[in-house]
Parts: sequence; C-alpha cells; structure tokens
Amino acid sequence: LSSGKEIGLTVRKEENFSDWYGQLVLKSGLADYGSTKGALILRPYGYSIWESIRETFDKYLKDTGHENGFLPVMIPEALLKKEEEHFKGFNSEVFWVTRAGTNNLSESLALRPTSETIAYWAFARWISSYRDLPLKINFWNSALRAEIKATKPLIRNSEFLWQEGHTVHESSDDAQKEVNLILGLYKKLIEEYLAIPVRQGLKSNQEKFVGAVSTASLESLMGDGRALQMATSHHLGQNFSKPFEIKYLGRDNTEQYAWQTSWGTSWRLIGAVAMIHGDNKGLILPPKIAPIQVIIIPIHKKADEGLVKEHTKYVLVDLEQANIRAKIDERDEYTAGWKFNDWELRGVPLRINVGPKDIEKSKLEISRRDTREKITIGRNELVQTICSLLNQIQNDLYTKAKEFLSSNTTPAFDFETFKKIISEKGGFITAGWCGRDFCETQIKEQTGADIRIIPEDDDSIMENIECVFCRQKPSVRVLFARAY
Amino acid sequence: LSSGKEIGLTVRKEENFSDWYGQLVLKSGLADYGSTKGALILRPYGYSIWESIRETFDKYLKDTGHENGFLPVMIPEALLKKEEEHFKGFNSEVFWVTRAGTNNLSESLALRPTSETIAYWAFARWISSYRDLPLKINFWNSALRAEIKATKPLIRNSEFLWQEGHTVHESSDDAQKEVNLILGLYKKLIEEYLAIPVRQGLKSNQEKFVGAVSTASLESLMGDGRALQMATSHHLGQNFSKPFEIKYLGRDNTEQYAWQTSWGTSWRLIGAVAMIHGDNKGLILPPKIAPIQVIIIPIHKKADEGLVKEHTKYVLVDLEQANIRAKIDERDEYTAGWKFNDWELRGVPLRINVGPKDIEKSKLEISRRDTREKITIGRNELVQTICSLLNQIQNDLYTKAKEFLSSNTTPAFDFETFKKIISEKGGFITAGWCGRDFCETQIKEQTGADIRIIPEDDDSIMENIECVFCRQKPSVRVLFARAY
Repeated sequence: LSSGKEIGLTVRKEENFSDWYGQLVLKSGLADYGSTKGALILRPYGYSIWESIRETFDKYLKDTGHENGFLPVMIPEALLKKEEEHFKGFNSEVFWVTRAGTNNLSESLALRPTSETIAYWAFARWISSYRDLPLKINFWNSALRAEIKATKPLIRNSEFLWQEGHTVHESSDDAQKEVNLILGLYKKLIEEYLAIPVRQGLKSNQEKFVGAVSTASLESLMGDGRALQMATSHHLGQNFSKPFEIKYLGRDNTEQYAWQTSWGTSWRLIGAVAMIHGDNKGLILPPKIAPIQVIIIPIHKKADEGLVKEHTKYVLVDLEQANIRAKIDERDEYTAGWKFNDWELRGVPLRINVGPKDIEKSKLEISRRDTREKITIGRNELVQTICSLLNQIQNDLYTKAKEFLSSNTTPAFDFETFKKIISEKGGFITAGWCGRDFCETQIKEQTGADIRIIPEDDDSIMENIECVFCRQKPSVRVLFARAY
Repeated sequence: LSSGKEIGLTVRKEENFSDWYGQLVLKSGLADYGSTKGALILRPYGYSIWESIRETFDKYLKDTGHENGFLPVMIPEALLKKEEEHFKGFNSEVFWVTRAGTNNLSESLALRPTSETIAYWAFARWISSYRDLPLKINFWNSALRAEIKATKPLIRNSEFLWQEGHTVHESSDDAQKEVNLILGLYKKLIEEYLAIPVRQGLKSNQEKFVGAVSTASLESLMGDGRALQMATSHHLGQNFSKPFEIKYLGRDNTEQYAWQTSWGTSWRLIGAVAMIHGDNKGLILPPKIAPIQVIIIPIHKKADEGLVKEHTKYVLVDLEQANIRAKIDERDEYTAGWKFNDWELRGVPLRINVGPKDIEKSKLEISRRDTREKITIGRNELVQTICSLLNQIQNDLYTKAKEFLSSNTTPAFDFETFKKIISEKGGFITAGWCGRDFCETQIKEQTGADIRIIPEDDDSIMENIECVFCRQKPSVRVLFARAY
C-alpha cells in the first residue's frame, strides 16, 4: 500500500453489501484477482489467516488420528467417470487438460474438482485387511471448478484452497461416527476460533454431495442475510468402495466392501469472517485467528524518536513473552493517521499508541477495533489488560453474530409469508417441509431459497406441522435461505 | 502394510541402484505411483517428512522477513509468453487446459511449470514506490511439467511439491544479497537437517534458469555417483521487470525498473535423503527430520502384557517431555520381528525394545538404525542417552556422506582420463573449462556429464589451468557430473 493511494472503503456495507465485500477483500490486502475468470490470488495477509486456520484445524485432525498426504491434481477421465452420479454432478464444471507441450494427450485429464476418485483408486491398493483400517487421510490442497454462476472472491472461485479428508472404515457405524466427529471439529473451529455461530444438520436428498448417502453441513448467515455453507461431512456408505473395489478381509475372515466418509472446508471461511464481522472501516478479525493481535504505533516528533522507539520495543517484548502476536509498525514513511486507517482496514483487534506523554505518565492508550473504544491503562497493567481484552473481543464478536443469527431466523407457516420474508428480510426461514423433491424445487424456483439443512440442533424436528408449500402433514421443520 | 505382504527390499543397492531406489520409495510407505505418466502420490509417511522440511524452512524464511501467499495454478498463454526465453525454455513441457465442462476455452491455460509470469503480473500492481520494496513472497505449492525424459519418483515427476520464492528489490546489489541469503538458508537446511553435504556455485550460461541473469545452485552426489541439483537461487536482474513493467518510484523521485530474484527447492530433497543415507534394509532418516525419532516396541507374552504396556507408556512420556518425537507400536496383530523390519524399512533412527526382563533389571535395549548397533542402558539413563545418540546419528550420517562426496570427487587433467572416470567411477570430476559453450556441449554429448557448477567454495578457481576438452588457457575449474 502506497501512501498516495486511497486506502479506505468507499462503499457502505448497508448500501451495497456485494461491492462493500469486494472492496474489503481487495483493499485489506487479503486477496487480489487472478488473470483468468474467477481466479484469485491470496496475498500474504490473507494467506497468513489461512495459515492460522490451517494450523488450528490440522492440530485437531492430528489429535484425532488423521494424517496428511498429497494427491496429483490431474485425474484421468476414466477414473473420474467411475462413480456415475459423482461424475454427472461435476462434469459441467471440470477443467480438462488435453495437451502437453505440442502433443495431444490420448486421454483427457481432469483437474481435481474433488479427489474422491483418485484417492479411492489408491486406497484400493493400500487396504487389504481390517488391520489397515481405519484409514484416515487429509489433503491440504486446492480444488478447481469452472464456475458457471457469478464468481465471488473467497466464496466462489475457479480455484480455491481447501482441505479434503477421506476415511475408510469397517462398518457404516464407524463411518457415521467419523462424520459426526469431523462435524464437531468444524463447529469448534468455526465457533470458537472464527467467532461465527453455525446451524447444524443434514442436507436434503437434492442438495447432498453427489455420490454420498448423506451430507451433514454447518450453515451460517452472512451480514446481508444470505446463508453460506461453511463445511460439510459426507457419509459415502459403500457408494464408492464398490466401483473402486475397496475391499478388506474382515475379522470374520470374509472379504467385505469398506465404508467411507469425505469432508471439507475451504478458504471461504475467511470470506465468512469478512462478511460477518467486518464493518465500514474494514475487516474485524477474531483475536484467535488474527495473525497480528496487537499493533503498536510509535507516535513522536523527531526529538522524541529514540525514546519512543525504545519504549515500543519494551511493550513488544512484554506482549511476546505472554504469547501475544504483536508487531510494531516501524514504517517511518507513513503518518500515524495513515497507519491507524491501514490497521483498521486489516482488522487487527487491538492498537496501542506509544507517545512521549504516555511514557512520561507511565500510561498506554489502547484502541479496540471492534467497538473503536479507547482505554487508557497504567503501563504495569499492559499484559493483563491485553489478554483480557482479546478474550472479551473474541466473545463479543461471537455474541453479536449469534444475536444476528437469532434475529434473522424467522418462522413461516404459509407460503405467502415465506415469500414476503425472503424478499423483505432474508435470513433463515424455519418452515415445514413434506420431504418431497417437488415442493423443494417449487420453493426454490419461486423464491430462490433452498433447503440449507434439516437441523439436528432444533428441538422442533418432526413436529406435527404442515409443509409450507403443499400444506401436507406430517412434515419436518427445515431451514430455508437464499444462499451464496 | 498387511502382515501377509513381503515388506523387505528384494534388490540390493550395490547391484541395481535404480530398482533399489524404486522399491525403497514404495515399500517404505513414502509414496505410490499416480494414475498418469510420471505422477506420484505422497503417502502420509512421505508427507510427514515433507512437513518436517517445510516447517523448518518456513521458519527460516519467516525469520528473514519472507511471507507466504497463494497463486492460481492456471496461467493464460499470453502471460506465459511474455518473457520469451522463459517461455522457450518451458514450452515443450507445459500441460494445457483447453476445455471447461463441454466448452472449449477461447485462450488455452497453462498449468504452472513455475510462477514467475503470474506472480510478476500481480507484483506490477502491488508495487509503485520504494516504500513497497523489498517484496519477499514465497509460495508452497506444486509445479507441473510433462517430463519427456524418464520419470523417477520424487526426482522427476509430472507434478511435484516445492516452494518457489519471488522477491523484488531496489537494486541489483540488494537482489544479489537475497540470492546469497537464500542459498545460505538452503545450505543450512540440507547440511544441518538432511545431513547431506553440498557443493555450491554458479550454473554455466547454458545450464542457468531460463530468463535469469545467473543461477546459484547447490549440488550433491547420490549413492550411485550421480549428481542431483538440490536447490537453486536465481538473480533475474531486470529481465522480467521490463516485460512485466514492475516499476517503482525511487528515493530520488524517478521511475525505475525493479530487480528480482526467484528460488526453489522441492520434494526431491526427500528422494536425496533416501538415495544418500538409505541401505539394503530401507530408509535411514536423519533424526532432525525424522517424523518419528524413536519407536518403542513392547515385547511380551500374554501374561506380561499389562506390565509391559504400562512400562512402554512411561518410556514414551519421559521421551515426549524431553521433546523427542517418540511413538509406541501398539499393533497387537503383528509380531515383534515384523515390526523391527517395518521400522527399519521406514528408517526410524532409534528403536527401544521393552520386555519383562528389561523392566525387571531396570534396563533398556536400544538399536541404532544407521549402524544397527545394540546398546543396553540403565532405565534412568534413558533421556540423556537418546538425546546424545540422536545427535551422534545426525553427525555420523553427515560425516559419512561427506566422506563419500570427497572420495567421489576426482580431478581430470585430460579428456581421456575424464571419460575413463565418468564411465568407471562416476561422481564429480573437477576439471578446467575455457568458458565456451562449444566445449561444454562436446563434453556433454560425448560423456553425458555436464557442468554442475562453477564452484564458489573451491580455492582453486581461476588457476592457470587448461580446458579439459580444448586445452586452452586460461580456464576456470568447474565440477562436472552425470546428473539426475
């Protein structure tokens, strides 16, 4: 960022959410557009948030017995076609490599839209006995999908960073336990680290992953009232183990097809953080995933430079010794005011100004990014106050988002009300559904809202309620929304 | 690995190095072949070694002010063609995406053979003033090259994991300092962590990176006497900044083209570890990068099971508290002998057997993987002995490889001797070269050996010696070898 450039956001969140978000992603230094349709470059600041997320989730995975691996990005056409439903689901958005150097390839190679097919082709060779199970492997890579719909940075791109986990088990029950375990880990990551509340449940038959028996999903509401699928965990049953011949010799000495799961989340989590917590000044990062939690700004005239700079270093050392991720903004070529704006834009949770008067009085001025509140504290209260403020901000962001989610979840008992809510208020609509594809499709076509989940965390599941479209009973209560 | 499978190597290193290496990579669980020509899958064990290398080098990079980012894998043809030499160098091995779903693309998209072009297309937008410099970004990703020559796992694959760093500076001098800094970091990583000695120097004009002003390289000798390029660091001068228009407003208020570097190393480092340290029993991992440094094997009959298993846990806790990466092999379905072979194959530096007699006598039996030596120690000496043995092994592996490198570096003063050494002994040949492309090409065509480097670490550079081919003076002393 050069001093000459306009760094602030010029569109307000309330006025044009989509443009505000686009500016936010670019101007905060998270990302930049790539050179092909829908492509995105992650700049160091955005990537460092991805590293925070990756390190946190990777630890969860390793603590629960998962290991990482690497798969090639190119998948032969024949392999991608092996599970028919799966191929049908992805076919329209697959990028194909047809040439190497000046030679046409004899078989086209797909760029991975997801790795079930290539992974299971390999798993079949690695598994021969129950001793080889469970197999629990995760891949931190990127997936490629030619997006036909409009693209959106971090939410819908032609290539995106993600992780995809693939596991193999001895029984359907073991696979279901894995599906639940992973959904729990995603929920912990998203709620505790990203400060984003989620709703949890199963996808409808039409919306589940192509090739899966069932898909469990976490859904959140963005600042504009649209839903975003945050992470999914699929029970694949034996749908892939049969075509890919993943068989094992069981404890009973008979050969059996294995049971599988797959699950993933992506850099869209960063997009969700921006859309949910961000404001008209820029990003607001939850302290737990903020690459920089505290930015220290030296404020001085030429005469005080030595004194102030020395003092900022003491502040830094104190914070670092308490394992707080802090940094001094030492760029002499920028004014303090410019730096304030820059770090607000980047969403650093806390800012400390250090000037000659503060040093004289043994005081420090702290600014909260989320509330923009200023607090003056004694120099000796530094570490304790910062720790407690970081906790406070993490909690406050979650609470605020939770309130937003609650107040934007509205029941609808008839289709007229449903349509009115969708067009005027948005958010989640909780309504009855008879379970038929027909009603689901009609609702989607007429309102743009689809079934996000059949909630697991809703006490009112399976009440004696009517389908909001056809008025049939019995119905289940589901969450509808327009979604990204 | 199932108990029914043959797990040991069936080819000896001395007899058929290439087949031995191929078996080693597959049977140790490092990797498996992919489903297209030259493709490789990294299995969890291989990936965990890559994670060790990545974490170590990533820390070096961050400590020296580098940040990570993400670039899309697809590069538009026009962009890849922008720097002509560069494109000519890679053109024959580029994979091309020509179709998305059922639609032909209007412009073909290359899969990154390396990211200079797409990175610098973006850098041009991010840089406008000296304030934005230096820009030092690294990318942990994969590169794709359709290998026309024979492929070899971890050494030459159609897709490989690597890191590529790209930096931009205000002066040629700053860029040169970066080139040297990075080469030093690679040297530290490879010598101190992988226990592999390297020779350091500049590539000849014919062998340097396409588009670079100069390429500095680290070269090692594999167990069969062939050289392997371990890492390279390129001074790009203004060769890319001009076509990509990376300009900045200088401190003197004039607009200038920037100076650049790029540098990389790949998963071939894992291949080098296997080829240099491995033996006929399998891998031998240097302790510093071994994902598991100590494997603990409980040895018991049914009656002693409880006692022995409890005791292995105490051993584990003691080691973990000393930050040693240890693991108990708890697989009841395998025999102790099978486990010994398995962990030898995987190259774990130390093994501890825990049996009822050891517990009774307060003793432990430790086996070194590298020398296969067995040491019996008192239980209370555990942590101290293990720490010292791990250090010892790390040093011994390096010393052994260093001796191999020295004894396989042979001077040649005439071309007949040169040819004899190459065909009979292999290794590095140190010989004079007049500096002309002609002699370099003749030598390569007649012997298969090329100039690996013009050594920087050789005192005898620029002596008054003759070119080994044309006998002209003056010449520089260079290192020749047949290479992978």
